[in-house]
Amino acid sequence: MDIVFIGAGNLATRLSLEMQRAGLKVQQVYSRTEEGAKGLAEKLDCDWTCSLDDVREDAGLYIFAVKDAVLEGVISQMKPNGGLWVHTAGSIPMSVFEGYAARHGVFYPLQTFSKEKAVAFCGVPVFLEASSEEDGRILECVAGAVSGTVRFLSSEKRRFVHLAGVFAGNFSNYMYAVAAKLLEDQGIGYEALLPLIIETAGKVAEMSPSAAQTGPAVRFDENVMALQENLLEDGDLRELYRLISRGIYKDKTEGL
Amino acid sequence: MDIVFIGAGNLATRLSLEMQRAGLKVQQVYSRTEEGAKGLAEKLDCDWTCSLDDVREDAGLYIFAVKDAVLEGVISQMKPNGGLWVHTAGSIPMSVFEGYAARHGVFYPLQTFSKEKAVAFCGVPVFLEASSEEDGRILECVAGAVSGTVRFLSSEKRRFVHLAGVFAGNFSNYMYAVAAKLLEDQGIGYEALLPLIIETAGKVAEMSPSAAQTGPAVRFDENVMALQENLLEDGDLRELYRLISRGIYKDKTEGL
Repeated sequence: MDIVFIGAGNLATRLSLEMQRAGLKVQQVYSRTEEGAKGLAEKLDCDWTCSLDDVREDAGLYIFAVKDAVLEGVISQMKPNGGLWVHTAGSIPMSVFEGYAARHGVFYPLQTFSKEKAVAFCGVPVFLEASSEEDGRILECVAGAVSGTVRFLSSEKRRFVHLAGVFAGNFSNYMYAVAAKLLEDQGIGYEALLPLIIETAGKVAEMSPSAAQTGPAVRFDENVMALQENLLEDGDLRELYRLISRGIYKDKTEGL
Repeated sequence: MDIVFIGAGNLATRLSLEMQRAGLKVQQVYSRTEEGAKGLAEKLDCDWTCSLDDVREDAGLYIFAVKDAVLEGVISQMKPNGGLWVHTAGSIPMSVFEGYAARHGVFYPLQTFSKEKAVAFCGVPVFLEASSEEDGRILECVAGAVSGTVRFLSSEKRRFVHLAGVFAGNFSNYMYAVAAKLLEDQGIGYEALLPLIIETAGKVAEMSPSAAQTGPAVRFDENVMALQENLLEDGDLRELYRLISRGIYKDKTEGL
């Protein structure tokens, strides 16, 4: 199964390297910029191009891993071929391929990726969708080579998985960023937060997040909450503090 | 150094057990309820009481680990003695002891605690404050027995450390709870989120949270953001989504 990657960003980088490691052959990388295409192709030791016209037509699998905002534009510029085209986007329906490629699907790994940081792929859930049973089996086989947690899911449900991922990943990370800023403003390195961050994350492997909750909001400690809100100079952060505290207390008393 | 714990909640439980493990002697536990006092005293194999009048007067160190809202009330009901009195609250100034105990201080571990879950205490930052240099040395010695990361910090600055802890711990955990609810509503177990949660948390040991950020908000992917907002039926969650997305983009473009 020869593979072409359309895109050379964070996800394309980690996924292509993992596929190669698992014995799959990445044949070519396309990226809008030479820097991107060449950079990833060198890591994979394969061909690269910055022109969609020059994408090889004989590969078995084309993995589109570009920004959501440009995905349909890129698909529409690709010359039709007989391969299986899949994208990696949580919020875009599989139907985006209709009219462009008869064989199509989705390969969505629920994880955060950075170019330079390897990820233990074996446990990463991969959510698949395919336009035919046969192509579904191909995707299952490819996904199974990199992950032990593979399941099929409709475009409709995948949107909620993506949204959940944004909360659990991007939004929790923003909480770390705010916390880091608060500490650094007091001359304390944000490394002091790492044990708390790691413990909080690790805890939900043993109990549900709702059961694991601690702190002033779950105790409804009005004094502390009022004092903390006042420490925040930024109006958006104060509003955020209020909203999340209210949400935590609601979860405790009546459920989310 | 004999120690008395005033309180038998999450923090008191984990801290007293860790102190005992480190060779310090916990002499007695006080809690408002018999269940609390007896439960912890049995784990520690020590005395217990539900009456502040019966708290021993000959201990070297009294550690107050009760809810912030009742701390001053509890302190005011304790019979004066010659021991060193400390509390464990992030947002309450050391001066809460003035008029009640000549020798006083603060022992604040930056971590989330649950009764039943042990914590690797050695890396937990402990922030100390003391009313005299001599008592500061005593606290440094006690804290050093359980943690390798001990520093002195004023009441003023400690408030910000506590606030940072609320963001990095309680608030990130709330993001997990919302994500879990979104998945479970689709019939998917929240365990699917664990690799993402662990990766996001572990990443900030290698790069700053701002540098580690990924997802639709940092790319300012308006399409995805509008779609995701619409998936949230609860008005507070929609507002939360908007506020955090705006914050992530602000951090990316102009800093927090």
